Amino acid sequence: MKQINIDSNLLLAYSELIKDDFFEMSVLANTSAFLNEILDNINWVGFYILKGDTLYLGPFQGKVACTTIEVGKGVCGTAVARREAIVVPDVEKFPGHIYCDPLSQSEIVIPIFLNNEVYGVLDIDSPIKNRFTDADKDILQEFINVLENHLKSVLKYQNEQD
Amino acid sequence: MKQINIDSNLLLAYSELIKDDFFEMSVLANTSAFLNEILDNINWVGFYILKGDTLYLGPFQGKVACTTIEVGKGVCGTAVARREAIVVPDVEKFPGHIYCDPLSQSEIVIPIFLNNEVYGVLDIDSPIKNRFTDADKDILQEFINVLENHLKSVLKYQNEQD
Repeated sequence: MKQINIDSNLLLAYSELIKDDFFEMSVLANTSAFLNEILDNINWVGFYILKGDTLYLGPFQGKVACTTIEVGKGVCGTAVARREAIVVPDVEKFPGHIYCDPLSQSEIVIPIFLNNEVYGVLDIDSPIKNRFTDADKDILQEFINVLENHLKSVLKYQNEQD
Repeated sequence: MKQINIDSNLLLAYSELIKDDFFEMSVLANTSAFLNEILDNINWVGFYILKGDTLYLGPFQGKVACTTIEVGKGVCGTAVARREAIVVPDVEKFPGHIYCDPLSQSEIVIPIFLNNEVYGVLDIDSPIKNRFTDADKDILQEFINVLENHLKSVLKYQNEQD
């Protein structure tokens, strides 16, 4: 990962980027593009959205991806079942890993919560092993906290429009 | 553009890719990734979705993008107002072009129709001038026809679930 200093302006830049957008797809799509621009050594970054017991592919940057993942399956489904972030240094050693892209060697998945319910996950793949550290997890969690806060308003607004 | 022969298996591969997905965001996200993989000399490919008189950013591949475009503004908004595809050989010469990414030199926008109403647009930018020909437009329209047919089922299914 590039030297992201969370005292830097990146979190602020991210917050500014999404704060005026109240269309769920726009927020998620630009978030994946923003993270893709600031992270190095990654080959996929994007979202899966939870509906019932299934995660559905959302906006992402990277190659064509698996569209559905059952809760409990793979790294994404396991993060939802455990309700916690998972850092996988070597995907070949993760039991039940789902091979969407054979290039991926390591992975991090961070659940996104809205009002204590899982909304979905941020999923990032790397073409090298050991790409993500616990420090990276903490930094990415800061971005997810910004996203969670904003998504609450977005979904409230969207429900009012429907 | 790579030599895309529409007699080739690419349209079939695309149709197979999306045919079992009934989550709108998944279909659009994987479509942008698929087109990104088969087209060369492009720096942005994705969707804007029409709600009222505004186009909202949808899933895409590329750098962080403008999130809202009014109907009638820029290439995307003009394609919606005219209800037709627009090939722009040189964006600097398109009156009212919106500069999302200074790298973009040429652009193609194809409206997506559902039941004769504009659903949104496919927008593709290139870092070189004169990237898109009328032949490219016809080929991309074939992909959009497949997408339109499938999106009808997706939105019907989604409305039933809500």
